[in-house]
Amino acid sequence: MDSDTQTEVLKRLAYIEGHLAGIRRMIEHDTYCVDVLKQTYAVRRSIEKMEAKMLDGHLHHCLLDAIREGRSEQSFDELVELYRIANK
Amino acid sequence: MDSDTQTEVLKRLAYIEGHLAGIRRMIEHDTYCVDVLKQTYAVRRSIEKMEAKMLDGHLHHCLLDAIREGRSEQSFDELVELYRIANK
Amino acid sequence: MDSDTQTEVLKRLAYIEGHLAGIRRMIEHDTYCVDVLKQTYAVRRSIEKMEAKMLDGHLHHCLLDAIREGRSEQSFDELVELYRIANK
Amino acid sequence: MDSDTQTEVLKRLAYIEGHLAGIRRMIEHDTYCVDVLKQTYAVRRSIEKMEAKMLDGHLHHCLLDAIREGRSEQSFDELVELYRIANK
Repeated sequence: MDSDTQTEVLKRLAYIEGHLAGIRRMIEHDTYCVDVLKQTYAVRRSIEKMEAKMLDGHLHHCLLDAIREGRSEQSFDELVELYRIANK
Repeated sequence: MDSDTQTEVLKRLAYIEGHLAGIRRMIEHDTYCVDVLKQTYAVRRSIEKMEAKMLDGHLHHCLLDAIREGRSEQSFDELVELYRIANK
Repeated sequence: MDSDTQTEVLKRLAYIEGHLAGIRRMIEHDTYCVDVLKQTYAVRRSIEKMEAKMLDGHLHHCLLDAIREGRSEQSFDELVELYRIANK
Repeated sequence: MDSDTQTEVLKRLAYIEGHLAGIRRMIEHDTYCVDVLKQTYAVRRSIEKMEAKMLDGHLHHCLLDAIREGRSEQSFDELVELYRIANK
């Protein structure tokens, strides 16, 4: 991962960890389940945005390098596999 | 949230927090992005399973109480709203 | 399914079928894949909105009847199972 | 879209259209909502598989051409945008 992407992704991860800590407190203090669920949905969205950031870095760096070095086939297969897993 | 659901959900949450801490280490140690992404997908799945557990508790307790007390309309609207948000 | 929900769901389904027919033409006329993909995403969103409509009808009719007839347990299990499948 | 991908995608699309026609009949014949919902979930999965097939073709053809012709930046941005839209 290039350094800019890494910095940005770690920042987003810290935010997600903080959000989950907040959700832990909500559950411990017996917050209404529906309100907790809305927060866990928001966490999943934040993770997806962090993933998009990683993917962006991956394409611009790892993929471009791979293609230049003649390893495009393997990289494309990885991307399609990621797509399948992301959509389960 | 009933006590059984709360215990189970907090256990799952601890697992998710541990998983994210592992992902943090992967990123800090410059693990290949594709492998990190597979782990963030897995975390999202774990969150969804935790949500299913909360929903289960919600239906069997909050919803049932709400219906008995004549507040079914509001509870159904909440569930449909949750569905819409979950699928954003 | 109650009659209002059925009418509304069939209307949405007709729209989805029309959208897919448009996507078929796009593919046959060799439209750029990225533009086709944006349309298939839109179709999935339309299906999700149709599902929310069905769920709404289900809660207000089938579920309410089930609870009144003492079959709440089975209905709740169905809803949680649906949630799990929806998020696969 | 290359010819092999196009053929495969149109085949999958025909299957999806047939599945939706079946769902229409289920709704018209008043099938239990929960069973209809399970089928609409299955349709969404089929659409996602069709998308993965299109993405595969896109990477191996359009993207590779774009990179060779020095248009990698635009193609990567498109892919990240697709990712964001797919996860809405």
